[in-house]
Amino acid sequence: MEVQIAVAKINKYAVSESGDTLEVVERPTGGISVALADGQTSGRGAKAVSMMVVRKVIGLLAEGVRDGAAARAASDALYTEKKGRVICTLNIASVDLHSGTIVLTRNNPAPIFVCRGDQADCLNAESVPLGTSRNVRPLITEIAIEAGLTIVMYTDGLVHAGERRGQPMDVCTDLQAMLEEQDPSPQGLADALLAHAVHLDEGRPADDISVVVLKVGTREGDDVRRMTVRLPIRIG
Amino acid sequence: MEVQIAVAKINKYAVSESGDTLEVVERPTGGISVALADGQTSGRGAKAVSMMVVRKVIGLLAEGVRDGAAARAASDALYTEKKGRVICTLNIASVDLHSGTIVLTRNNPAPIFVCRGDQADCLNAESVPLGTSRNVRPLITEIAIEAGLTIVMYTDGLVHAGERRGQPMDVCTDLQAMLEEQDPSPQGLADALLAHAVHLDEGRPADDISVVVLKVGTREGDDVRRMTVRLPIRIG
Repeated sequence: MEVQIAVAKINKYAVSESGDTLEVVERPTGGISVALADGQTSGRGAKAVSMMVVRKVIGLLAEGVRDGAAARAASDALYTEKKGRVICTLNIASVDLHSGTIVLTRNNPAPIFVCRGDQADCLNAESVPLGTSRNVRPLITEIAIEAGLTIVMYTDGLVHAGERRGQPMDVCTDLQAMLEEQDPSPQGLADALLAHAVHLDEGRPADDISVVVLKVGTREGDDVRRMTVRLPIRIG
Repeated sequence: MEVQIAVAKINKYAVSESGDTLEVVERPTGGISVALADGQTSGRGAKAVSMMVVRKVIGLLAEGVRDGAAARAASDALYTEKKGRVICTLNIASVDLHSGTIVLTRNNPAPIFVCRGDQADCLNAESVPLGTSRNVRPLITEIAIEAGLTIVMYTDGLVHAGERRGQPMDVCTDLQAMLEEQDPSPQGLADALLAHAVHLDEGRPADDISVVVLKVGTREGDDVRRMTVRLPIRIG
């Protein structure tokens, strides 16, 4: 089989620094994890918070700490530092080759979608961000790795897109429609969801938006691992 | 402008764990860094060493430590732990938006290529791996960010490909030939170099091989950051 992870990410309009942070790390027992955090407010302060949370989580995962424990540790560290005044959402998606499962960790009111073929299940049980109290519990979902599985998770910029002009985004309907097309690529899915949100925000995103799509497919060819990053930049 | 980073990575034949580790991190002052380490020998021990080095380096870069200092710190930590008995190569390529430069840090006998258009310069001054002594110095090269720049770096699996049957790889000639083609994509370059090495090793890589290509291009379209990871997996 083959796992593909695709990310599409844009900053709030006219803000140079995103409050969203995303990192990918190899798991020491085999596999890969992606952590996505969204710090409260926007700009530099939010960036510092989401970077701190993602660094903490990724560092612990790299040491073999389990996902739920890493999320709790990041929450406690944030609560200790900010006394509950600053919160941060967190999603972790892990491909754990040791257990043969995908482990989804959620501290985020925004849902995670688990799709098999063109059927999308919505994980939307109530979930609180990190840093809100001493006893923040992540919601953990564990799913056997199988071809045809697609996981979609995102920050709340996607949820709130279009609200400014009273046309909120319906991610579930969008996603269902895209999945009914012929086997969309993960990057195609992530790009299309992000593009729709930016369109609803009239080309000026009202918040940072990050979309992550993880897909398990059948193997196509070789044993090579690949990664591509595309980063638009402005100098000076 | 737009920065693209592409990675192609394969394990030594019949070894499930790569001694090469690669990670990407956002720089707190803007930009992105990619760190690539190759731990001595292969399999689990080498993986633990290269992961330790990359974790150390990435963690320091995320805190705003400069690249050369991060490399020295990783070397000292490795030397302290292993008493000089285990060494590890390291390359860091950073797109530093604060200084408007690409910073290349090299502790690796294997060269780094800096290409402008179809002209490839070879950075091959003598360079020692991390952990060899108390005074390991990285070689630092700083280049103004400009469209048309391509950086190619890799682990020694590429250098030694084909040696088993007396047909060693000539990376420089290969690269020149590819650059003379019409504007190859970074992933295309990385894939082609890796594929040639695997071919010279008769389909059974004699060592872990990782190739990283960083390219600065003109902007194509939107402000979206994108990342794709492809990971072939075997369960159980």
